Amino acid sequence: MQTRTVYFVSDHTGVTAEVLGHSLLARFTGVAVRTTTRPFVNSLQRADALAAELATLPDEPVVFSTVTDRTVRERIAAAPGLHLDLFEPFLGPLAEALGNPPPADAGAFHGIRDLASYQARIDAVEFALATDDGSNAERYGQAEVIMVGVSRAGKSPTCLYLALQYGVRAANYPLAEDDFEAEGLPGAVAAFRGRLFGLTIAPKRLHELREQRRPGSGYAELRRCEYEVRQAERLYRRHGVPFQDASTLSVEELAALVLQRAGLERHR
Amino acid sequence: MQTRTVYFVSDHTGVTAEVLGHSLLARFTGVAVRTTTRPFVNSLQRADALAAELATLPDEPVVFSTVTDRTVRERIAAAPGLHLDLFEPFLGPLAEALGNPPPADAGAFHGIRDLASYQARIDAVEFALATDDGSNAERYGQAEVIMVGVSRAGKSPTCLYLALQYGVRAANYPLAEDDFEAEGLPGAVAAFRGRLFGLTIAPKRLHELREQRRPGSGYAELRRCEYEVRQAERLYRRHGVPFQDASTLSVEELAALVLQRAGLERHR
Repeated sequence: MQTRTVYFVSDHTGVTAEVLGHSLLARFTGVAVRTTTRPFVNSLQRADALAAELATLPDEPVVFSTVTDRTVRERIAAAPGLHLDLFEPFLGPLAEALGNPPPADAGAFHGIRDLASYQARIDAVEFALATDDGSNAERYGQAEVIMVGVSRAGKSPTCLYLALQYGVRAANYPLAEDDFEAEGLPGAVAAFRGRLFGLTIAPKRLHELREQRRPGSGYAELRRCEYEVRQAERLYRRHGVPFQDASTLSVEELAALVLQRAGLERHR
Repeated sequence: MQTRTVYFVSDHTGVTAEVLGHSLLARFTGVAVRTTTRPFVNSLQRADALAAELATLPDEPVVFSTVTDRTVRERIAAAPGLHLDLFEPFLGPLAEALGNPPPADAGAFHGIRDLASYQARIDAVEFALATDDGSNAERYGQAEVIMVGVSRAGKSPTCLYLALQYGVRAANYPLAEDDFEAEGLPGAVAAFRGRLFGLTIAPKRLHELREQRRPGSGYAELRRCEYEVRQAERLYRRHGVPFQDASTLSVEELAALVLQRAGLERHR
């Protein structure tokens, strides 16, 4: 398989170039890539340094760019490579529809564009940390969603992604032996049935994940994993808790599914 | 200020459409937007339902779309609105450069494209959670970066973002009274000087943040905030710890700056 050199270049963090660039590259399944991100290229000096770097590469790179300043952009584009400006194709149609020509410089950019929604994200992260893994259950009343599932099913990363990306207050509660033996919902979450969202996972995958954490333990045993997953799903069905199989899904996919199925609003 | 209706539409999570869409909209500073995300629009039935929804809107929406299947895309684009296909302008040039035409369907997409790098991200989240706020200092040897700073300077969200977005193992250690009185670096981090990265913050901003957490407390007092910030910066300078003022930066900006200044590799 050929390996191509790819640059994500930005006058800001580079996140937009990385996200769209990776999505586009995923379409080219036969090509392996070696990627480099160059954020904060916001001066002619930095543009020239980058152009010089691109010129020394053994192969022509693919350059995904979100540089606002035209002069900076042109300096970079003078270097060898396929230069794709990720903003340019859309600014004209948007200006026509929104009746407001884009400003000439990068002054409009700022990491914190909307302080209230930014603060909601940071507060949601604090909430997710405080209520991770069953902690501070007295705060569940403030949760928009409470993820439930057995240990290592993927609750924590999903909650943190929901918080960081969407400002959603997501708590998580681990299901364990006591919860399976009881008739009702676990006491800590019983009052919040409508906000529960369950995760399940293929027992073999769970076994692998637990083996990484505690090799050879009873906790990681396949039989124990099978039992817990069966009991968790039984609990979801008995109490009408919506749930999702997390075995082959990324945290981005899980978060999008939870938002959609739980009807949650993105605070961003 | 006019308010426009904006849709982010995808046959997958919608993250790419949201990220590029928000970046583009930020250029149009005079326009307020009401945004809606429609993920997993991957069938004609869902496309038709969305088109019907778009047709009922009082104003013509702006639709940022990353739908791969042409038929699905065309059904949506038949509805009123400005439809911007975020992939289309780049696929031709990329196909020419990479010598591999894109597949016709969405089959190439999957949330977990590279299992090893995905696992690195999930492991990094587990690491950031385990080592948050000074916990499990015995694991600092596995950290790629150890963020230090006073309480509420922004260490935890930055570490979690570094983990989730880039798979970087980031621990964080809170600086407190004992650390300021000592001569050397705090004992827990002294052996890892080269991996330390400090955050600082304007005392007034810190005071506001702490007031939200514990109103009227000594912890939140402006004088106390001024003292702690001064001491933290003195510690950074004395021991040559690189540091960044987090007062007006988003977590995305902080993460990008930390990666760049600490020379860390993105595992993604």
